[in-house]
Amino acid sequence: MDLPELTPPLLHFLGQSAYLQLTLFENLSRAVANAPTTDAKESISRVASLSLAKHHALTAQIERHGNPPGAVMEPFTAAIDTFQRSTQGADWFENLMTCYLTAGFLDDFYLRLAAGLPGDYRAKVIDALESDAGADRMADELRRGIEANPRLASRLAMWGRRLVGDTMLVARAGLAASTNHDSDEARIEPVFTELIAAHTRRMDSLGLTA
Amino acid sequence: MDLPELTPPLLHFLGQSAYLQLTLFENLSRAVANAPTTDAKESISRVASLSLAKHHALTAQIERHGNPPGAVMEPFTAAIDTFQRSTQGADWFENLMTCYLTAGFLDDFYLRLAAGLPGDYRAKVIDALESDAGADRMADELRRGIEANPRLASRLAMWGRRLVGDTMLVARAGLAASTNHDSDEARIEPVFTELIAAHTRRMDSLGLTA
Repeated sequence: MDLPELTPPLLHFLGQSAYLQLTLFENLSRAVANAPTTDAKESISRVASLSLAKHHALTAQIERHGNPPGAVMEPFTAAIDTFQRSTQGADWFENLMTCYLTAGFLDDFYLRLAAGLPGDYRAKVIDALESDAGADRMADELRRGIEANPRLASRLAMWGRRLVGDTMLVARAGLAASTNHDSDEARIEPVFTELIAAHTRRMDSLGLTA
Repeated sequence: MDLPELTPPLLHFLGQSAYLQLTLFENLSRAVANAPTTDAKESISRVASLSLAKHHALTAQIERHGNPPGAVMEPFTAAIDTFQRSTQGADWFENLMTCYLTAGFLDDFYLRLAAGLPGDYRAKVIDALESDAGADRMADELRRGIEANPRLASRLAMWGRRLVGDTMLVARAGLAASTNHDSDEARIEPVFTELIAAHTRRMDSLGLTA
């Protein structure tokens, strides 16, 4: 289920999704720096690399359009920096949980919005968003942590529930403004229902209740 | 001028150089997270990507040898983590200066040691170490900072002088242990003279006295 009617203008879409992806990379690079073991550090460094490649695939489209990525991302930095601060988490596992859940949710969301992009950008953007985000590696580390410390499960379950609210808010800011609020809501609702179902499956995969 | 007589065993070389490179990436990713402008953030994200690619090119050789990168890097983590802490710097510019100077020095150093690696690994490792480290982008940001705030120059010059000592110490730990201390020193000295000359040129390129 796509949202082409609510796709914002191309540079709005690219600036916002590229800056969000850069923020996800920053969270992952913090997870690299603070990893509890050298194995975990090495594994998450692969995830960080995938995330950064995704960001640069999006900025490549900004450059193809003839614009400087910094200036195109600028209008979205304040709101996304706030999102980043509020979803940092209290420790390594909460931060990694943020990386795992928000990357999954936001890639899904922007993929649905990408359906409404101009034809010569749509396929490249979809390729970028669909590229591997390293979810399996993140889920492995999270499961390993929960197995080693079962009390972590309830804390991460609560954190996952909190994250979904903040993530939905930042996703909504990615929608085109429209004059017909009721008809927009009718379009958005089933899409968010799907996105939340996917979020629930991600929680399930860690053995956690969403 | 190379140092093949002092090249340590292959996995020692790869484990240590790969972990150092991962540490350089961590410093760069901190520079991404704390960048003063969105343009600087975007530019340094390219440098971080190059650095991470260099790390993964080295771990690919560890894997080709049939070993897990985490375990091979493990013996070197404590000393390199200490190096990382002592070279963090007090602010964004000092951190970026660390990235610029230590990456340059250590790539040069490991390139000279790589001459003594077994033939089927030597070329791949040299390719990895010679790959672009984004030095131009880092130097651009540092010059921009110094132009905007001339008082930064003397602070960064002092910081650069301090860094060279710590960097030489961590480089020395990469040399094979040998029984003939005097003959080792005679080999090392001219190489370090060259490395310090290159360091001085890096400082010069920022308008700073080494």
